[in-house]
Amino acid sequence: MKDDSLQSLALPHVAKLHAYTPGMQPTELGWTKLNTNECPYPPSPKVAAALRAEIGEEGESLRRYPNPQSMSLRETIAAHHGLSADQVCVGNGSDDILNLLIRCFCTQAKATGFTLPSYSLYPVLVGIQNGASTVLELDRSMRLPVEKIVQSNARIFFLTSPNAPTGVGFPNVEIEEVLKRYKGVLVVDEAYATFARENAVKLLASYPRLVVVRTLSKAYALAGIRVGYALAHPEMIGLLDRVRDSYNVNRLSQVAAQAAFDDQHYYTGIINKVRHTRDHYVSEWKNLGWFTYRSQANFIFTEPRNAAGEASADVAKALCEYLLSRKILVRYFGSHALTASFLRISVGTDEEMLLLQETFEAWLKHA
Amino acid sequence: MKDDSLQSLALPHVAKLHAYTPGMQPTELGWTKLNTNECPYPPSPKVAAALRAEIGEEGESLRRYPNPQSMSLRETIAAHHGLSADQVCVGNGSDDILNLLIRCFCTQAKATGFTLPSYSLYPVLVGIQNGASTVLELDRSMRLPVEKIVQSNARIFFLTSPNAPTGVGFPNVEIEEVLKRYKGVLVVDEAYATFARENAVKLLASYPRLVVVRTLSKAYALAGIRVGYALAHPEMIGLLDRVRDSYNVNRLSQVAAQAAFDDQHYYTGIINKVRHTRDHYVSEWKNLGWFTYRSQANFIFTEPRNAAGEASADVAKALCEYLLSRKILVRYFGSHALTASFLRISVGTDEEMLLLQETFEAWLKHA
Repeated sequence: MKDDSLQSLALPHVAKLHAYTPGMQPTELGWTKLNTNECPYPPSPKVAAALRAEIGEEGESLRRYPNPQSMSLRETIAAHHGLSADQVCVGNGSDDILNLLIRCFCTQAKATGFTLPSYSLYPVLVGIQNGASTVLELDRSMRLPVEKIVQSNARIFFLTSPNAPTGVGFPNVEIEEVLKRYKGVLVVDEAYATFARENAVKLLASYPRLVVVRTLSKAYALAGIRVGYALAHPEMIGLLDRVRDSYNVNRLSQVAAQAAFDDQHYYTGIINKVRHTRDHYVSEWKNLGWFTYRSQANFIFTEPRNAAGEASADVAKALCEYLLSRKILVRYFGSHALTASFLRISVGTDEEMLLLQETFEAWLKHA
Repeated sequence: MKDDSLQSLALPHVAKLHAYTPGMQPTELGWTKLNTNECPYPPSPKVAAALRAEIGEEGESLRRYPNPQSMSLRETIAAHHGLSADQVCVGNGSDDILNLLIRCFCTQAKATGFTLPSYSLYPVLVGIQNGASTVLELDRSMRLPVEKIVQSNARIFFLTSPNAPTGVGFPNVEIEEVLKRYKGVLVVDEAYATFARENAVKLLASYPRLVVVRTLSKAYALAGIRVGYALAHPEMIGLLDRVRDSYNVNRLSQVAAQAAFDDQHYYTGIINKVRHTRDHYVSEWKNLGWFTYRSQANFIFTEPRNAAGEASADVAKALCEYLLSRKILVRYFGSHALTASFLRISVGTDEEMLLLQETFEAWLKHA
């Protein structure tokens, strides 16, 4: 039997898929990692303490299946947002939630909509579902195309807000305008909303077709444990639960997430620190003459200029490679004209940002 | 807007789904839990030690995404089975792997096959995929229907071996007969194979359309961390990777699973203990006159007789409820004639099994 016969047995759309490319995750030390929007500070010390308590001496509890509804965590999340537990669905990362939504609503005949740029996982998930996509291109203002969303044929529309990779937040007043007029399901993917001025949670009370998606990977400094969640109408949560794996969130992740939620005071501190660092460097890079979006997230999207004052895809790529040669990782999205002349840089510690700034200056002198 | 309009926006097959019903997971103490085939003994103490080391003082590493390919764990699993890392795909529990397989191969036109009885998750996953099922009913002998599988129109066929809920193992010689003649993908779901006399891993070298699925939830006493894996041809692993979430296995679960694999000596001990307890109680219940399958798994499927010597669905259900009233959980599968007169009982500790046996005897006296 030839190897390629497995390809021919697979569904044709699967055989043609390209997997999502996650940001580089080096395992060696010595890298300055500003490429995947992780939190530069450790999680609350209460997380480590709660995990140690769950593990105990012998890991005895690990032989038992986790709570299939993540019930205690759901209640904690609901209370935090002023909602009820039946308005919360917990996922194995927010990617799990996004996947469940697409499995509930998307086919070839019922498209999934999203803006370009936005989170690059959406088209990957649509591809796996063999569904159709409706892509709305933003312009350089990165303003929300309210009218186009309302007029679109998409059955479900994903809005990353604050947007990735630009960091631009879409105002609630515009999101509400969409909710009033758009007939499909609107998903506001708020992976970065904890760093923003406002968020869409309060709109849930009025709009049952709204889903707000959150993650603990960014503001909660817990990318390693894979917990995200949806906030929505109980009917919507009921739909997600029918498609969700019954043991999708493991025991330790449930415990860690709950301990994090129980220490909001700690997180307020690090979130404010990240915002402060972010706003400082947005100003710094504007001062360098680099076009830089006002970020509402924990990263900055900036269009570098070289010593000759030129900004272009080649310049951005050259700086990205220069940084890589200095073991500094940032993210470059070269596949589209709207993003190809920019770099997306996660907000790091003061030390990391200073090293980055010095490396920018060295590049400007020698490139 | 009426609540039911969300139902009408959802894909019709999703709106009609019934979620998989996991076994009862009580959170209070005092239950004897013989209903979900968890290991009655704790995991290797090296698991707890490795988790403590990863968490450290502050949980610093948790702010980082996990390795997206579970690479170190894949290498460890591959070495254990005498395979290479590109023959291994790690999942968020083996349920994740089963779901990926169905997403790669199953539609309305390309059915998923399985036997009845077998793992009751398969039809749930097919339903979520809106695919077709080919169900082959076993007879009371529970022998593998080789000819029917070969003749079936299924694009992919799932074989639980040892079977659930019967515990009957299908011999390699019969599995190989299927592999030689069946044209689709054969998945041998070996969740319980660690407790069996033989397994299908060695057949991988000759049959690229074979997928062996394993879990750490049973023999490795790690149901709480959700790790399972597929062993298959590298082309098959490549297909699964295109459909897999790129961060499907969290950091702590990768560490825990690896530590478990590194302590095979410990697991040989508890696996032998479970087998010994199992074989003892198969004999005990046969001595009571109860028809009991020779189990190759960590549970026993037995057909209880009441004091009057009657065996029936009513008798099995009555015993199940009697046990429940004594806070002993076992599993009852009432929906099919082949299983409705039986109970599936996970092998527990000596103390738990003695309590169960005494409760059987009390029931026989008073029921």
